[in-house]
Amino acid sequence: MKTVIPVDLPQNQYDIKIATDGLQYLGAWLSAIGKSGKVLLVSNPVIFKHYGDTAIESLKAAGFDVCQCILPAGERYKTLRSIEKIHDVAFTNRLERSSTMVALGGGVIGDMTGFAAATSLRGIAVVQVPTSLLAMVDASMGGKTGVNHPQGKNLIGAFHQPSLVLIDPNVLATLPGREFRAGMAEVIKYGIIWNEDLFDQLEQAQRLDQMRYVGQALLHDILKHSCQAKADVVSQDEKEAGLRAILNYGHTIGHAVESLTGYKLVNHGEAVGIGMVAAGAIATAMDLWPQTATDRQLAIIQKTNLPTKLPENLNINDILPTLRSDKKVKAGKVRFVLPKRIGAAFVTDQVTDDIIRSVLEEMF
Amino acid sequence: MKTVIPVDLPQNQYDIKIATDGLQYLGAWLSAIGKSGKVLLVSNPVIFKHYGDTAIESLKAAGFDVCQCILPAGERYKTLRSIEKIHDVAFTNRLERSSTMVALGGGVIGDMTGFAAATSLRGIAVVQVPTSLLAMVDASMGGKTGVNHPQGKNLIGAFHQPSLVLIDPNVLATLPGREFRAGMAEVIKYGIIWNEDLFDQLEQAQRLDQMRYVGQALLHDILKHSCQAKADVVSQDEKEAGLRAILNYGHTIGHAVESLTGYKLVNHGEAVGIGMVAAGAIATAMDLWPQTATDRQLAIIQKTNLPTKLPENLNINDILPTLRSDKKVKAGKVRFVLPKRIGAAFVTDQVTDDIIRSVLEEMF
Repeated sequence: MKTVIPVDLPQNQYDIKIATDGLQYLGAWLSAIGKSGKVLLVSNPVIFKHYGDTAIESLKAAGFDVCQCILPAGERYKTLRSIEKIHDVAFTNRLERSSTMVALGGGVIGDMTGFAAATSLRGIAVVQVPTSLLAMVDASMGGKTGVNHPQGKNLIGAFHQPSLVLIDPNVLATLPGREFRAGMAEVIKYGIIWNEDLFDQLEQAQRLDQMRYVGQALLHDILKHSCQAKADVVSQDEKEAGLRAILNYGHTIGHAVESLTGYKLVNHGEAVGIGMVAAGAIATAMDLWPQTATDRQLAIIQKTNLPTKLPENLNINDILPTLRSDKKVKAGKVRFVLPKRIGAAFVTDQVTDDIIRSVLEEMF
Repeated sequence: MKTVIPVDLPQNQYDIKIATDGLQYLGAWLSAIGKSGKVLLVSNPVIFKHYGDTAIESLKAAGFDVCQCILPAGERYKTLRSIEKIHDVAFTNRLERSSTMVALGGGVIGDMTGFAAATSLRGIAVVQVPTSLLAMVDASMGGKTGVNHPQGKNLIGAFHQPSLVLIDPNVLATLPGREFRAGMAEVIKYGIIWNEDLFDQLEQAQRLDQMRYVGQALLHDILKHSCQAKADVVSQDEKEAGLRAILNYGHTIGHAVESLTGYKLVNHGEAVGIGMVAAGAIATAMDLWPQTATDRQLAIIQKTNLPTKLPENLNINDILPTLRSDKKVKAGKVRFVLPKRIGAAFVTDQVTDDIIRSVLEEMF
């Protein structure tokens, strides 16, 4: 199975290739988009052990001169220090403006490699080879790159579009179940905010909690619909001036939950799942979305075996100030993405603290 | 005297305002381009002592909420560490996407503030208020931002256009003579590569080595012609795909001289002056430029009291490998900008090591 999704941006056009065994064609496809010369491959030790050889052999076979930077795995290493390590390898190996960085890993590796490429020689090409479901359907596309700052997640960053996104579903074979479910949270998001057909497919599936229950055909469809949704939204609003903000559905409360639990207890996808439950309930509390829709969303999240409750030790009094420190704040007002029907969402700054509080109180 | 030079880029339009006493209008002009809310002013201790109060009062009078980050002066502090300090102040003060950074200083402050703005919240607005002649005619325009890496100058960086460039010639009153002459090197460059009228004006001037000999009227003309030249070139080639490379006239040898002397003995403008002498001689050696033109260029550089010889302790055997580590290298070939007549230049990778060596040997 192979699907190519073109992404059309004013100054950047690139393809998202979804292809079984695609990793073997990394070098050939890089050549096909006109790249040659030096490649810096960035990965983490676990992913590199599984897929590093395949990637490097493919690149070398296509004539690339490959160097590598292996960074420790985990969100807590998503810092400017790691970017410095990538820069060190890049400049010691004399990368040129025509060189390419390849991100082989999950969202953390993708965000960091993208940012390192954005800030090397004032911007060199980056190719995203996501290895987690979350990165495949979200982080690898759209050009958001960056690292965390002690004051908040992704505060340091830049927009830098990839030259190619290569998604090989095979690499999900080694993805831990919890990571798979985390990625499914973003898939469910696209069903709610953009594609009712995707939502229906998810609703009809027996189980969504492990890859082996999902099956190759549905997985390919999930990847295709999710990537197309993201490509549609990003094409219409590259720099998040308006529409693109709907991709943050579930992320307002989600980011606060991640931040307040120190990015440890709850992972990003789980936090987004919790955030979607909250956003759905807020929309229902404001009479913008029927209770039945909130229930249908909840059923899919439960079928994925994602948490739907707030972590027990969380204090609601901490959540509201944390929301205000989010970078999506505009003139001090917290902006929420709320569903208006299944397949469509909108952005509002009209959610009161009282509503947020009463919804969250029901979520323990 | 007041001149406004519009810069037209595909996705960015902004003005360069050259105005006596313009610093007093910083706040008003920021409002005029639609800015409001928080401003982070970045400066160094010397400049801040002279002009910080005027800038801050102007911003506050226009209703801005101002915080500041004062960084030590000097090229050796142009590092990722300084960027982290700007980020810390920015995020501690909860800057938002609609906030603005203002760079009040020379090229180092301008490059760092621009890069910090480029990498904060994936890009916020920056206003350049250059206080050195070099920054006024070069670094503050065109959107090149960045910091140095142990492997080379400006290797870490991004393109990020300013929202406004405010040039107040009054602030040059406190500029040391050596810094003034360094800025004149870039002015002379524009005469050679772009504007024959500017070259003629410089040729007719009695002395160019100190501001008080230049006078207000000629200074305004110099600023106007230089900024217009840079705006012309950058508008035609924002991302340095082709034409923009001619702005690197004198910079190929210049960067090597700076790098090999540890960025201490020779400043950037002086290095560019030396680089222009070398590039002129190379063009003459290759029969591309008459000896008389090389002599006329040399006379203006001498009249500015800029060095025209290589530092004594420099070893020619070190220069060639250093040229190859420059980020302008493409497929391993060193690219030179050479003059073809006064007012026009071109880029070539056809300069042989033998020619470089023989020209440099004559420059001790």
